Amino acid sequence: MERIDSLNQHGLRIIQSDNVFSYSTDALFLSHFAWVPKRGHIVDLCAGNGAIGLNLSTRTNASITLIELQDKLADMARRSIQLNRLDEQIDIICSPLKNSLDYLKPDSIDAITCNPPYFKPHPNSKQNPNPHFALARHEIATNLDEIMTISAKLLKTKGHLSMVHRPDRLLDILEAMKKVDIIPKRLQFIYPTINKPAQIILIEGIKQGKTDGFKVLPPFIMHQNNGEYTKEMEALVNG
Amino acid sequence: MERIDSLNQHGLRIIQSDNVFSYSTDALFLSHFAWVPKRGHIVDLCAGNGAIGLNLSTRTNASITLIELQDKLADMARRSIQLNRLDEQIDIICSPLKNSLDYLKPDSIDAITCNPPYFKPHPNSKQNPNPHFALARHEIATNLDEIMTISAKLLKTKGHLSMVHRPDRLLDILEAMKKVDIIPKRLQFIYPTINKPAQIILIEGIKQGKTDGFKVLPPFIMHQNNGEYTKEMEALVNG
Repeated sequence: MERIDSLNQHGLRIIQSDNVFSYSTDALFLSHFAWVPKRGHIVDLCAGNGAIGLNLSTRTNASITLIELQDKLADMARRSIQLNRLDEQIDIICSPLKNSLDYLKPDSIDAITCNPPYFKPHPNSKQNPNPHFALARHEIATNLDEIMTISAKLLKTKGHLSMVHRPDRLLDILEAMKKVDIIPKRLQFIYPTINKPAQIILIEGIKQGKTDGFKVLPPFIMHQNNGEYTKEMEALVNG
Repeated sequence: MERIDSLNQHGLRIIQSDNVFSYSTDALFLSHFAWVPKRGHIVDLCAGNGAIGLNLSTRTNASITLIELQDKLADMARRSIQLNRLDEQIDIICSPLKNSLDYLKPDSIDAITCNPPYFKPHPNSKQNPNPHFALARHEIATNLDEIMTISAKLLKTKGHLSMVHRPDRLLDILEAMKKVDIIPKRLQFIYPTINKPAQIILIEGIKQGKTDGFKVLPPFIMHQNNGEYTKEMEALVNG
């Protein structure tokens, strides 16, 4: 069952469905963290129902291309773009990530964002029986190496890649970035409370960037000890 | 000019000198973070005046070997060991780190700690004119690759390496660990305040460990916004 939700304080709305896909706070974290150029061309890989691309449109005049494998999700994103009258800024390509270069020129993109599937495929098929969820959560149709390889091909030299992921994959991410010479520059850890291990990471790398100046940003704490949102989380969720 | 300082609430004392070496809070962070076996053999590399080895003696019955290059510092550490009547638990070797295997058997150590020089050697010799400080702060006499190579040789399979370092060297550290198959397991970031970038990292790796289960521990915040120590920092500094 589809519904239309409010996406942010800029008045944007988004089509969602609990049976197919709803964006998570991870998409909000990435929309806020990602480096964006004022103009130029941004690509959002693994775009889902388009939450990140829609959010980024409030931060930049760059054109934004969404790439999403699943046609149901791509269709929801396309209708959300129309709903918000953003057809001139945002377009969507329904395609496997690995075919991105059939649609976009190499070395042409200023910034890439990606909220990818987090989990390695389960050998004992413990993944979600709902195929939409399984594809969004598990590295079935794509994986870190492929995302990094395609990103490195699409990005201009010094172009930025921003990604949200899980801390237990940090080493895999750094290794995949290194292989294609995307140099990590900024890393931020998101902690559920000040007393708990990090739950989410945000990472930015620059294609053929300098290897110095790597920085770990201030901690982002989601909840106070009484369970309520921190001020910064409140600000994020309320757009 | 030497002086004797109180090291911790266990009554330990330590010989220091502002002209040669005084331990920093980084040594306290590592003493607290490091995994230690109940018994067995621990080695502290780049031991300085012995603060970490002395501190660890309150947490374990293992024997502890300190390795320190500079004879002035090794001598201070030796006298602090005697002062605390810890000669039976702690011994010190004054030697370049790379010669550690002249004194210790390969594959024999349960845990290694290391608070190494943090900075790459300055090409334009901006390093401290005091040679004691220069050697302790800059990678002149040793470097990350050498520390990891020696650690991997000294450690038993599944032995633990714990290190304190700077966030801007995180990528170098992970790469150096990878080369010698010391698998990162725990990582903690220490932030000066909740609003500032990480200033210190603590990392633990296991020789030939499993590659899953990597964890980013809760953030450690040093100061409240009013400049006072947080409770956890207070507890650390007061031993």
